[in-house]
Parts: sequence; C-alpha cells; structure tokens
Amino acid sequence: MEFKLGRLLIGRTLKTEELKDEKFNKFWGLPILSSDAISSVAYAGEEILWVLVPIIGLMSYRYMFYAALCIVFLMFMLVFSYRQTIDSYPNGGGAYIVAKENLGTVPGLVAGGALTIDYILTVAVSTSAGTAAITSTFPALLTHKISITLGLILLMTIGNLRGIRESSKIFGIPTYFFMISVLAMIVTGVVKVFVFGYTPQTLYEVPKVTGDITIILFLKAFASGCTALTGIEAVSNGIPSFKEPAQKNAKIVLGLLASIVLMIFGGLSYLATLYHAVPNSEVTVIAQIAAQVFGTGFMFYVIQATTAIILIMAANTAFAGLPLLLALMAKDGFVPRQFTKRGKRLGFSNGIIVLAVLASILVILFRGDTHLLMPLYAVGVFVSFTLSQTGMFTKWVTEKKKGWRHKAFVNGLGALVTFITVIIIGVTKFFHGAWIVCILIPIFVTTMLRIRAHYIHVAEQLRLTVYERPKAVDLAEQKRYVIVPIDTLNKSFLKALNYARTMSENIIVFHVSVDEECTEKLLKKWEEYGVGIPIVVKKSPYRNIVGPLVKFIESEEYAAGPMDTITVVMPQFVVTKWWGNILHNQTALLVKTMLLRRRNIAMVTIPYIIEE
Amino acid sequence: MEFKLGRLLIGRTLKTEELKDEKFNKFWGLPILSSDAISSVAYAGEEILWVLVPIIGLMSYRYMFYAALCIVFLMFMLVFSYRQTIDSYPNGGGAYIVAKENLGTVPGLVAGGALTIDYILTVAVSTSAGTAAITSTFPALLTHKISITLGLILLMTIGNLRGIRESSKIFGIPTYFFMISVLAMIVTGVVKVFVFGYTPQTLYEVPKVTGDITIILFLKAFASGCTALTGIEAVSNGIPSFKEPAQKNAKIVLGLLASIVLMIFGGLSYLATLYHAVPNSEVTVIAQIAAQVFGTGFMFYVIQATTAIILIMAANTAFAGLPLLLALMAKDGFVPRQFTKRGKRLGFSNGIIVLAVLASILVILFRGDTHLLMPLYAVGVFVSFTLSQTGMFTKWVTEKKKGWRHKAFVNGLGALVTFITVIIIGVTKFFHGAWIVCILIPIFVTTMLRIRAHYIHVAEQLRLTVYERPKAVDLAEQKRYVIVPIDTLNKSFLKALNYARTMSENIIVFHVSVDEECTEKLLKKWEEYGVGIPIVVKKSPYRNIVGPLVKFIESEEYAAGPMDTITVVMPQFVVTKWWGNILHNQTALLVKTMLLRRRNIAMVTIPYIIEE
Repeated sequence: MEFKLGRLLIGRTLKTEELKDEKFNKFWGLPILSSDAISSVAYAGEEILWVLVPIIGLMSYRYMFYAALCIVFLMFMLVFSYRQTIDSYPNGGGAYIVAKENLGTVPGLVAGGALTIDYILTVAVSTSAGTAAITSTFPALLTHKISITLGLILLMTIGNLRGIRESSKIFGIPTYFFMISVLAMIVTGVVKVFVFGYTPQTLYEVPKVTGDITIILFLKAFASGCTALTGIEAVSNGIPSFKEPAQKNAKIVLGLLASIVLMIFGGLSYLATLYHAVPNSEVTVIAQIAAQVFGTGFMFYVIQATTAIILIMAANTAFAGLPLLLALMAKDGFVPRQFTKRGKRLGFSNGIIVLAVLASILVILFRGDTHLLMPLYAVGVFVSFTLSQTGMFTKWVTEKKKGWRHKAFVNGLGALVTFITVIIIGVTKFFHGAWIVCILIPIFVTTMLRIRAHYIHVAEQLRLTVYERPKAVDLAEQKRYVIVPIDTLNKSFLKALNYARTMSENIIVFHVSVDEECTEKLLKKWEEYGVGIPIVVKKSPYRNIVGPLVKFIESEEYAAGPMDTITVVMPQFVVTKWWGNILHNQTALLVKTMLLRRRNIAMVTIPYIIEE
Repeated sequence: MEFKLGRLLIGRTLKTEELKDEKFNKFWGLPILSSDAISSVAYAGEEILWVLVPIIGLMSYRYMFYAALCIVFLMFMLVFSYRQTIDSYPNGGGAYIVAKENLGTVPGLVAGGALTIDYILTVAVSTSAGTAAITSTFPALLTHKISITLGLILLMTIGNLRGIRESSKIFGIPTYFFMISVLAMIVTGVVKVFVFGYTPQTLYEVPKVTGDITIILFLKAFASGCTALTGIEAVSNGIPSFKEPAQKNAKIVLGLLASIVLMIFGGLSYLATLYHAVPNSEVTVIAQIAAQVFGTGFMFYVIQATTAIILIMAANTAFAGLPLLLALMAKDGFVPRQFTKRGKRLGFSNGIIVLAVLASILVILFRGDTHLLMPLYAVGVFVSFTLSQTGMFTKWVTEKKKGWRHKAFVNGLGALVTFITVIIIGVTKFFHGAWIVCILIPIFVTTMLRIRAHYIHVAEQLRLTVYERPKAVDLAEQKRYVIVPIDTLNKSFLKALNYARTMSENIIVFHVSVDEECTEKLLKKWEEYGVGIPIVVKKSPYRNIVGPLVKFIESEEYAAGPMDTITVVMPQFVVTKWWGNILHNQTALLVKTMLLRRRNIAMVTIPYIIEE
C-alpha cells in the first residue's frame, strides 16, 4: 500500500544516467528565470503603500513614485554588476560561490546562510501571496487561507520530488501570460481615465491623517519596496542552462528582465496612484485595480489567475535553488552530507523536503500573512547581493587584469549601494522581524563551521597512511574470546553457539538472571545437555539485562591482552510478519545498540528465521 | 536532562525483592476496594433521568424509583453470587480466570476482552465525571473540560508509574469522606423539606411533555442505571490483599459495600425526586441537589470535592486492574509478552501507559462527555458478569460437590439475570454505542487467539529436542565465505578486513558503485595498497546500495555448499556525540536491517570509535 502510494505520487525510479539538462534560448530563458523577479512586483508596490498610507494618507502616492524610482535605479546598478558576474562565472555565479572564492569561508557561509533563509522565505511569501490572490478573487476562501497555502506547498513538494525541472517550458508560458495581461491592464487603466474620462471610485477610504513625510518614513517605504528586486540573481545562477552563446544570452535576458520589471513596477505604481488603491489584508492592491479597470468580469479573473500562478511559480524557483545550494554546501562539508544524495527521480529529495517543512512552519507561525513575513525577506536578499558584489570587487582588485579599474568601479559601487540598502532595511525593519535574520545568520554560520570541523575530524581519524598496510595476520599470536549471551536454551541459541565454536575455543556463555525460576530452569537444562562450556550467571535485581552484560564484557576486555579480540555472538530469531516484531522483546537489538556505543568489540548477529 | 526528568517524575529504580503486598483489614478494605462501585452511584441516577425526563417529564421521578429498585435487586443477586466466587477462588476470582477455567479459552478471552474495554472506559468515564464535578463547581472551567480530563489521566499515569499502590490507605480516606458527606446531604435534604417545610426551587424547567411511559422506555432507563453496578467485582479480585481470614473479610466487605450503595443510590434518587433535579450537560444532578440542600456554601464545596476525588480514584482502580489483567493474559500468551515486564518501580509500566493512551483517545473522541461514553460502558461489565456467573454455575454442575445444587442455583440465577441485563442493555443501547463493543470484542478475541498461535509457533520452531545436542564442530568439514562491503578504504574498513582475515581465507571485498568517480578513486587506492584480495564492483544505476549487496550475497549463498556459512563483516564507525549521527549516512544500519530480514547469514559489526 505505502509503497504503491509513494510510486503513484513520485513516479518510477530514474537511473543516474538520465540526469541531463534541457537548455533554453533567450525566448524561453526570459520567462523561466524571471518568474521570481517579476512576481515580486506583484506585492512590492503594496508593501510601500502599507508603510505610507496609514501616516500620510493621500500624499502616499507621490512618495510611492519616488521610492519606486530609487528602487528602479538600484535595479539597474544590480543589472550592470551582475553582467560582470555572468562574464566571470560561466558555470553559474551564486552569492555563495562568489563570496567563498573571493572573500573566504566565513563570508561565503554568511551568503549561503542568507540565501538559505531567503529561499525558505521565498516559498512562504510567494505561496502566501498566491493564496492572497486567490482569496481576493473568492473572499469565501479567506478562512481557509492557511490550509490553501500549505496545500500549495505540498503540491510543489510532490511536483519537485517527481522532478519538475525548473527548465521546463511549462514555466515559461504563465510568465508571458502575466506580463501581457498586466501590461494590458496598465494600458487600459490609463486610457480609461485619460481618454474616456473615467473617475476612479473610492473602494476603500484613504484614511484622513495629518502625518507628514520624514526621511525615516521614506526610507522605510523604500526598504519595503526593495522586495521587488528579489530574484534578480536567478539569471546569473542559471547560465549553464542557456544555449550557446550562454553568457551572451544570459546578459540579454538580464537586460530584458530589467526592462520588464521597470515597465510593470512603474505602471502598477502609477495605476495605484490613479485609482487610489488602499492596502488592506483582504483584497490585494492588484485586485482592487483590476476590479476598477476591467470590472469584475473575465479580464479581472485573468489578472488574478495569472498573478496567483506566477507567484506560485516563484516559490518553485526556491525549490530548484535551495536543494542545489545545499548540495553544493554539503559537498564542501558545511551541511549534512545527506543533502548531496539524489532521490528516486534524481532531485535532491532531502533538500526539497527540508525546504517544504520549514516554509510550512513559517506559514503556520505567521498565519499566512505575507505582510508579516516581508521584513524578514529583504535583509537576506540584500546581504547576499552585497557579499556577491564585494566578492566581485575583490576579484578585480586582486587579479588586476585588463580593464580592472572600470570593472572594480561597477561592482564596488554595486556593493556600496546594496550595503547601504542592507543598513536601511536592517535599521528600519529591525523590530519588525529583521532582528530574526540577524540572529539566524550567525547561528547558521557557527553551525556550518562546526559541522565541517566534525567531518574533517572524522576523516582524519579514518584516513589510512601509506604505512598502515593490512597486516598479515598471525593466528597463533592472538587469542580470541567469544561471549555468547543466553536467555533460553533453544535452537536459535544453539545455532549461535555452533557458530561461536568455529571461531574460538575460549567461549563463555553469559546469562543475566532477572527471574530466579527461569534461571533455575535454564541451568537444569544446561546441565542436562552437557555442552561442556562454562555458563556465567549474573543476578540483576533491577531487571536490567544490558547493564550487567556490558559490565561483564568490560571486565573481560580489561583482563584480555592487547592483541586479543573479544567477540560477542548474539542469537536473534527473526519473525517474517511485520506485526510479529511487536510481540517480542527487542533485547538483542538493544544490547547491540548499547554495546556499539560503548566498546570496541566485534558483534556477530546470527539470525534464526522462523518459518511461517 | 531527559533522564533526570524521568527520575524526578518516576523515582529511583526499585529492586525486584521490594515487591510485596500491603494487607488490609475490613475497615480499610471497604473504602479501598469500593471506590469504583460507590462512585458510579454519582452518575447512575443522572443517567436514568437523561432517558426519562425528555420524554415523560415530571413522571420521570416515579419511574426512576422503580428502575433504581430493579437495579438494587440485581445488585443483591450479584452479591450472593460473588460470595460463592470468593469462597472458591482465594487467590482472586476475576471474570477472565473464572470463565477460562470453567468455560474454556474463548469465553475466557471474551471476558478478558470485555474487561479490557471496561477498564479503559472506567478511566475515560470516571475522569470525565470527575471533571464534570469540578466544572459544575467552577463553570468558568467548562471550556477547559478536555484539558482538565487529560491532565487528570496524565497525573494518574505518573502516579501509577511511580507505583501508587491501590492498597495504600490514602485511597481509603476520601471514600469515607464521600460516604459521610453524601449521607449528611441525604439526611439534611429530607429534613429540610419535611421538618422545616422548605419548598424546592425549580433551577431548571422540567420540560412539559406529553409522552407516556412504555416498556421500552423503562428498560432503557434501567439499562442506563446499571452503570451503578460497575466495580462490584473489585472485592472478589482483591481477596489476596485482605488480612486473614481473607475470604471471610472479603465477604463481609462485599455485604457492607452493597448496603452503602443501597443507601446512597436510594437516597440520591429520592433527593432527585424531592428537588426535581433536571439533567443537563453543564451542572451535574448531585451539584444541583447539593446547591439546594446546603446553598452554595462550604458543604456544597465539600460534596463537589469529595465527588470529584472519589471519581478520580475510581479511575485508579482501572490503573491497578488492567495492567494486572494484561500481565495475566500475557503470561498465557494472548497479548504481547511485554505486558509481563515490571517497570522501574515494579508496576506493569506497559499496561499503565497503554491504558492511559487509549483512555485519552476516548476522551478526545467523545469530547469528554460522560453521557456519550456510558452506553459503551455497561455492556462490557455485564458481559463479564454473565461469563463469570456462568463459569461458576458450570463449576458446581461439573464438580458436583456437597451442596452443589443450592450453589448452582444461586450462580445460575445470577447468570440468567445478568444475561437478561446484557440483552436489555445491548438492545436498548445498540445504536447509542453498544454496537462498538459488539464489534470490538470479537476483534479482540480473534487477535488474542492469533497472538497465542504465533507464540506457540515460534516456541515450537525454537524448541530443542533431546537429540539435537551441540555438535562437535569439524573445522575441516565446512568452508567459510566472508564478504566485506567497502565504501572507502579507511581505517574503519581496515579493522574490519583484519578481523575477517582471522576468520577465513575466502574473503570477497564487495563494492556498490553509485558514483563512478568515487569508485575509480577506490580502485586506484586498492591497487596501491596491494592487499591481494579480490574486489568485486557492482554498478548501481538507481543509486541503491542495499539491493545489489543483498543480491550478491544471495548468489554467493546459492553457490556455497550446505555446510558452508556466509559471514558479512560490516565496518561501522561510531561517533560519540549524539548530533554526529545526523551527519552520517546510516548505510551500515540499513544494510544490517535489510539482511537480517532476508537471509540466514551471520553479520559481524566491527565498530571503529571516533575519539573526540
């Protein structure tokens, strides 16, 4: 049953050979790699309004425009910086690799930790935002917000365990749909007001407030809008998936991506101003605009549907990215090695599952509210931007290749600007959640360093030097002691004893007595059978079997010479029905586990299979 | 941490020798063994009213009196029957033993199954009723009903794991308190009305209904009230705990118990009639009466507190009874043998924990509502009564000792009456939950029979005949094949290989190749070291390590002769820090588990401990 269900959901196991990448051209590369970046535009404008509207009311729309301008400027800085990263890292230049190679281990791990947090947040934020698009369309579903979000995460987990490839063209189509429908909305919205003289209705009252704009407030608004820039780095990570000339294609796609974000972000901000959208926790700003521009007809549903789909696809970016990042870090020994193992369908299953579980926990903790998750989000993104740019800057300065001054200037400026942004976000959002990231990153880095230290330590202890060749074993030189624990004198024990007799002449049969009656029976039977091997009985007043056995073995080990080995032969009968195991004391298993942790002793298990 | 917490809650481990029973005289025996029986009176009257009031309104109180009369009659029948059981079973005559000895295995198991269900229900019902007494006093706690009930069960579980003895005198005092305070209430209540001319107030409206009494309705009321008789059998189970003359003391206590139940049950029913208590899900009938008789002053709280305490103690009867019953059945092989094991404090811990978990599940499923659990309760009790009486009847008829006719008549009549009651309860309550018991008992019996069949089968397969003496082993006669799986050529593997070389000359080193690069590295190193032992490499395109290894071992086993043994030597390095285990693939463990289930092969584990 269990296995069939798994197979139905995940599909047949794939051979390692079947691992190969589908390459894409510019036309498909653009939508596939940009879903995260473009989709974040769907909530960035709203985030700015959340900061401004409650304090400066109607004035918000003007300052929203200024904030958007700053963000777009920042984006172009990033685009120019990343073009240089694309040139230098043809195999994909993620922040972890760039920072580690150029700045050292700790900055690399900081970038890795920040990215890990970000990927988890991407899933939580994007699925929550996708759900918000759904519940804005069908308000009746509002009470099921969290279940819907968790359902979406589960769906993506199964999809990714099956091996949905990020490179699949299926992911390209909805992005184009989204771009086209939003652009259509922008054009219609503008024409409707200026050509047909439509007067936007006030769906939600803009609060009447007396606050005034301050530097701090503006910086806060800017910091909130910076989430629009998440996902920009996806293109430079994805170079190996482009058709040749890969680097050139990637750079073109990056440029196109920036232009599209510019258009959509600018257009949506302008529409929000025109139609006076007011952020609230039930209907998204996009839904408010769409409802006014198109009425609640067909096109309204198209906008909502494509928004929901592109947001969910953005979450899928994280499902492709984090497991790969973890596999990379696991290869370097910074996270548990299990993350390098490929699952049945060749995906890094462990990474996929860990991501899904952590994102689900976040969704539950924050009750599926995008708005609460945002402050945690942008810090990590900009920390990794800063480290990646600083890494590139260092690279140019150190290598001093041709034209390095110009290149160093571009990346240096990028590093500086993103660093300032980190500070702005960190300070203005500190108490809203940025502090969590500030605590998490050092914890991550320390843990990762400890993990590597552990792996190195283990490897050193296990490493063979050239001098340690397998010895020719001199049987005469060493004595072997074999201990066979006995509970009942039965066929299973006899099989174990016979095996022990082929190993050594020094056999001790050891019995822990918990029940005097049983022990007497055993001794009588032992006498009767006349095996001619001494039996040692130890009373256990506290009914503990493992304790006395381990103590006895330790005392024997102490008495043995340095060349001697002690072997414990454990009889164990095996029942073939699964429920049979519930019916028997798993003493043998317990003894094995305890002995393994305590002593340097060879343990032999002799199974005796009960035929059914 | 974990161990310290356990020790704090459970206490130090006790020696087996410290197991001894405290004996009690009549004065302590009465309250200790009767808490279950007396406490059930606290809800039995209410159950009758639940049936009658909604249909026949004010008339209910008259028919409640008749139903109570029938129940008291039934009780005296049971008392006379059980006096004979006490005479015949000085070591305690539980329904399981009496039915098994006199009627055979299946009736014994039916009684055992019915009792098991009953004990679980006792815990669920009594703690729920105790909580009802608490929430009737403090209505603010009503919303926490289930948590309080679960808390009480947890408390009792810890207490019983620590080894609260049912025989402890602490359990006697509250019963006397309850008896005295309820009798005081009955006397005061009657005096208040008839001497001081108090007119009872209508706290809750008796519904105006036009229904009339029918046979079916009356039988239903009678069936509901029968819960008053649960716990009667406790005295005959407890004979070994009485001081000498134990049987005589037990019979006197049984008589006293019956008189007290008669007084309290009769008195409470009469008061309910006088004061027109109306059952409802928020305030218990006892609380309604107490509030009118004493006002909501000190004595009201005394009544509520003693009721709550005695109900919780009644649950403790099950905690003493079920683990003992399970241990008894486990000795006979009908339930998993683990139930015979005594825990740290000499209690049958497994039984205690299983009881607590199942009762908690019931409480959660039925949302802590006593009233919903009741229909399941009485069926089981009366099934075990019937079987126990029938067993006694058969005993007299078969043995035909002096005076058997008279004794057979008493038990036969008891059997008949309780059987009729089973039918009445079963029919009238069938759709209210009795059907669950009717399904569960056959399932229990079948499962228990299968479990014993399994144990017998295993024992037969393991049993040594006198002819199967340990053979003198002829080393020349048999060949040994040793297979050593290799992943990396390191110290851990070398240690295992060296051990293998002392065992046999026929060593095969086996490698499952998942990653070609790693395999090439290994083979190069193997060459370099020149161990002179063949290495077999098997490619695993599906990245499965265990599968190819098991297949290889099977093929080798097929090739080997009948006298030959195959040994697998598994190198396993052991890290001493607990979190270290998360960082390593537990391949060795997995291989061991898989091999154990599949083949008749000796498995040797050579631990290599990583020093920290």
